[in-house]
Amino acid sequence: MLNDFRKDYILDRWVVIATERQRRPVDFIRETATKRRAEGDLCPFCPGNEEKTPPATLVYLQSEEGIVKEKDTNGHRHRKWLIRCVPNLYPAFSPPKKDDLWEEGKAVGYHEVLIESPNHNEHPAEARIPQLTHVINGYIDRLKAFSSTPFVKYVSIFRNHGSEAGASLSHAHSQIIATPIVPTVLTEELSSSMEFHQKHGECVFCEIVGKESKGPRMIWENPEYLAFAPWAAIHPFEFWIIPKTHQASLSNLQQKNVESLAHALKTCLGALRKLLNDPPYNFAFHITPHENTHEPYHWHLEVYPKLTIWAGFEKSTGIHINTMSPERAAEQMKEIIE
Amino acid sequence: MLNDFRKDYILDRWVVIATERQRRPVDFIRETATKRRAEGDLCPFCPGNEEKTPPATLVYLQSEEGIVKEKDTNGHRHRKWLIRCVPNLYPAFSPPKKDDLWEEGKAVGYHEVLIESPNHNEHPAEARIPQLTHVINGYIDRLKAFSSTPFVKYVSIFRNHGSEAGASLSHAHSQIIATPIVPTVLTEELSSSMEFHQKHGECVFCEIVGKESKGPRMIWENPEYLAFAPWAAIHPFEFWIIPKTHQASLSNLQQKNVESLAHALKTCLGALRKLLNDPPYNFAFHITPHENTHEPYHWHLEVYPKLTIWAGFEKSTGIHINTMSPERAAEQMKEIIE
Repeated sequence: MLNDFRKDYILDRWVVIATERQRRPVDFIRETATKRRAEGDLCPFCPGNEEKTPPATLVYLQSEEGIVKEKDTNGHRHRKWLIRCVPNLYPAFSPPKKDDLWEEGKAVGYHEVLIESPNHNEHPAEARIPQLTHVINGYIDRLKAFSSTPFVKYVSIFRNHGSEAGASLSHAHSQIIATPIVPTVLTEELSSSMEFHQKHGECVFCEIVGKESKGPRMIWENPEYLAFAPWAAIHPFEFWIIPKTHQASLSNLQQKNVESLAHALKTCLGALRKLLNDPPYNFAFHITPHENTHEPYHWHLEVYPKLTIWAGFEKSTGIHINTMSPERAAEQMKEIIE
Repeated sequence: MLNDFRKDYILDRWVVIATERQRRPVDFIRETATKRRAEGDLCPFCPGNEEKTPPATLVYLQSEEGIVKEKDTNGHRHRKWLIRCVPNLYPAFSPPKKDDLWEEGKAVGYHEVLIESPNHNEHPAEARIPQLTHVINGYIDRLKAFSSTPFVKYVSIFRNHGSEAGASLSHAHSQIIATPIVPTVLTEELSSSMEFHQKHGECVFCEIVGKESKGPRMIWENPEYLAFAPWAAIHPFEFWIIPKTHQASLSNLQQKNVESLAHALKTCLGALRKLLNDPPYNFAFHITPHENTHEPYHWHLEVYPKLTIWAGFEKSTGIHINTMSPERAAEQMKEIIE
């Protein structure tokens, strides 16, 4: 059954009413972090438990000639995989009955989990670069696959780390959700970028890269990427990773740049982990929803450590309170990397 | 020192960089709920500890003639109060040095705590109606006081209940923040309400009241107020309390309506408490920022139980996932009230 997809009475705010995981009031009564983590050897993402998930839509396997990309079927599950993409058992968005049918008011789309490694506890901060490269290539493969579906308008690639940041399973994984609308945050970013481009003749993010690479919020860089704490960070220790040259989407990344991004991720998430004792966090890619990679948008990754709580003021006004200045956060991240 | 008030590079999103409570990384490493609650007899909001807060800007005292409204001074703190408003010790927004001076880039405004009762553990679900009436009257008094300040553009009145919902002290209290901008959420609500009014000649919220009072999301009503689960609720068991007749702001509420609102609050928060074992929640009033109470806006109270976590998807897209349908939530709230 498809979930309902509803728009607020007056705001441009959408919600999926995810009745597939409909729960009783007692199910909402606070589960402890311990309880949530007590999955033990029953982890459905660990090697050997492949039957506990739906068939994989993508697996990477190591062959003598290099990486081979395969799919599972109901009758056969690949073993000895490097990464594995599977449909989420409790999807927020699901495919419509007919392939190209957009059902009004329904949450049509896709919702997958990308299992990042056979190792249950693998943290991007400690993963080997080739493994992280597979993960990023997996993101790109699924992004391309979903983008070519007619009713998909945006593909959100994100990671929740730690139960306080919303991860319900602790095995290293990311999620990919394909939605039938361009999300509000992206719509706003796109229209502001367009407006800036019309006024100033250049990409606003290229300008941000230029400024932040020299200032007090700069954290780390390599030839391809810059990591920095944004001027108006809404979370303590929030940072962004952005390509130095203009690229609107991830989908055309060269292999060299994928490896370089793996380095950036490992370095910065490693610094965060060391500085704050492996804090919970969320990260998400912001990319153009269009295939036109020349447009005045510039993809980037936003990393949100989960160290504080959004309360009544933030939720009702949209104004945030950040108790750590981005300049000070950047300074400390920088120090720990050096 | 005033906090910085920064706007995002491109989004209409604002953040207070609250350096007054600047903390070291170690301070962010997860405090347990237990630690946070270990305030015991040191509660600065309990009677006898009045010296632990700045002087009250408003106290309600019981006299033989009725309620008397007073202020503390540095030399004298009133005792035996019914409610007490004090400046927040760690304010997000602070008054500028000169009364009427808006300082560019600074978080000028006010940030107060309204201590709702001398009883440490008073929950609105169990408070007596006269006490809740004092609390609402206190909101209105501070709203009026702040609204007449030249640089104040909006007054946010909200309550965080439980440490998981961001309450750092457990003594029953609400907060009032006066900001130098109209917050994004309100700006959007106001312009959509205006648009609807121009098109249809009536208030969109009056229309909502008409529809929701008959449908499957209706929870409770009395002659003055309606409580219902909104169509596109973004939280499980979210509900709104709204006046049945058109009123843009709280500031002109008649005493009869204040008492009726106290009843509505007590009933609905009581149902939430019973149904979900005293869950953490946030509530906030949405009111017009203007004194023109005839405008096409309609004040209401939004109550957000904190039962799930906003993770990477919600934070990066603005699309929400609600695992409890508002119809089912309303049905269960209704049942428990009956």
